[in-house]
Amino acid sequence: MALRTLSAKNAAALDSELMSAGAFSIDQLMELAGLSVSQAVFKLQPPHKGKRILVACGPGNNGGDGLVAARHLWHYGYQPTMYYPKQSKNELYQRLTKQLKDLNVPFTEDFEAALKHADHIIDAIFGFSFSGEVREPFPKVIEALRGTSVPVLAVDAPSSWDIEDGPPLSGPGRGFQPEALISLTAPKPLVKWFKGRHFIGGRFLSPEMAEKYGLDLPSYGGIEQIVEVGAEGQKL
Amino acid sequence: MALRTLSAKNAAALDSELMSAGAFSIDQLMELAGLSVSQAVFKLQPPHKGKRILVACGPGNNGGDGLVAARHLWHYGYQPTMYYPKQSKNELYQRLTKQLKDLNVPFTEDFEAALKHADHIIDAIFGFSFSGEVREPFPKVIEALRGTSVPVLAVDAPSSWDIEDGPPLSGPGRGFQPEALISLTAPKPLVKWFKGRHFIGGRFLSPEMAEKYGLDLPSYGGIEQIVEVGAEGQKL
Repeated sequence: MALRTLSAKNAAALDSELMSAGAFSIDQLMELAGLSVSQAVFKLQPPHKGKRILVACGPGNNGGDGLVAARHLWHYGYQPTMYYPKQSKNELYQRLTKQLKDLNVPFTEDFEAALKHADHIIDAIFGFSFSGEVREPFPKVIEALRGTSVPVLAVDAPSSWDIEDGPPLSGPGRGFQPEALISLTAPKPLVKWFKGRHFIGGRFLSPEMAEKYGLDLPSYGGIEQIVEVGAEGQKL
Repeated sequence: MALRTLSAKNAAALDSELMSAGAFSIDQLMELAGLSVSQAVFKLQPPHKGKRILVACGPGNNGGDGLVAARHLWHYGYQPTMYYPKQSKNELYQRLTKQLKDLNVPFTEDFEAALKHADHIIDAIFGFSFSGEVREPFPKVIEALRGTSVPVLAVDAPSSWDIEDGPPLSGPGRGFQPEALISLTAPKPLVKWFKGRHFIGGRFLSPEMAEKYGLDLPSYGGIEQIVEVGAEGQKL
């Protein structure tokens, strides 16, 4: 039995319900989401295998998760480098950016140059609210992600993939299949087409909310904020 | 060489600087502080040794850390019970309380009755801003903490201890010596009188901020949010 998934529409509704009825703030949820992402990187790429993590952040919440993850990675002893070309005026993202600058984490505008010095990449460009076309300057970044041999961890969705229909048939993301994916709160329908290692993160869902949205509560272990699952949804 | 400590005055200044120049929100800091507390409980009292955690929360930020810790403990599989007699009108604490109620975590008004069914206690009553007298209804709670054989983890300070001068010479906390203490961000001067297991938590301090306040950055391991230290400040 495959893991139950959350459509783009329901993912937006669940997020909004967590922050209204659920009484979570976006600061809290993003902190926990980014922490999950950082723990997946630690599992995929322990520091002794290479510490240089290139974090590609988009303009929205997916990018915010990348900003938080990078801060935790720095504290674990990694050397994150940020590619964040469309910095939002949103106050939260500005604060998360400042927190990285206070750790002297570098921000680059040249993704392809940074790629040459990366051991691992976080794709935090687009998340569950993506649809339609990849806008500038991201087409060439996604092409580079598709072409590189550096392993990529995608946050919630491989960027450019349709949340319901998976990999695009044309455009920069055609044939893009990252090594790993972390689904936040719950997998999205696109996981059906995903072939790499799959983690679930975001250990804050109540059983009632999971039931309301028809989701499985993953079997996290110990104090972990992530769990790796197989194609059938079983814990690995 | 003992760990360098943070006076009550400097702890308040550092907290305030983290939220102004440091650009952290209180939601973020409290989430990470509470997460640290939950990880210390997991180390002191792994779930197979007893899951019933009684969390005593005071009216301020120390209580807020306890509310966050309880939520994480619930997700780890513990059964927290809350004693939170002076619930603040503060919006953040109200939200953290709602998050627990959505998990059906019970709130009790009878601390001594709850104590009979507890495997471990979190003392999140007073933190680094405490001074002077223990107000109602907490004197009898602190007496119960002092007298019980159930192990206690104190958050930032054993409640009723003076932040600079340690254990009180009279009053309900006279002779109160909890089994464990978690110092958030940095130890306070009272650790000189503390004889139990000592953890440090709050993995978000930048090296520059640590230097400014004359603090050591603890040597956390892996992805851990806490580190246990000896009386000389060395990692255990």
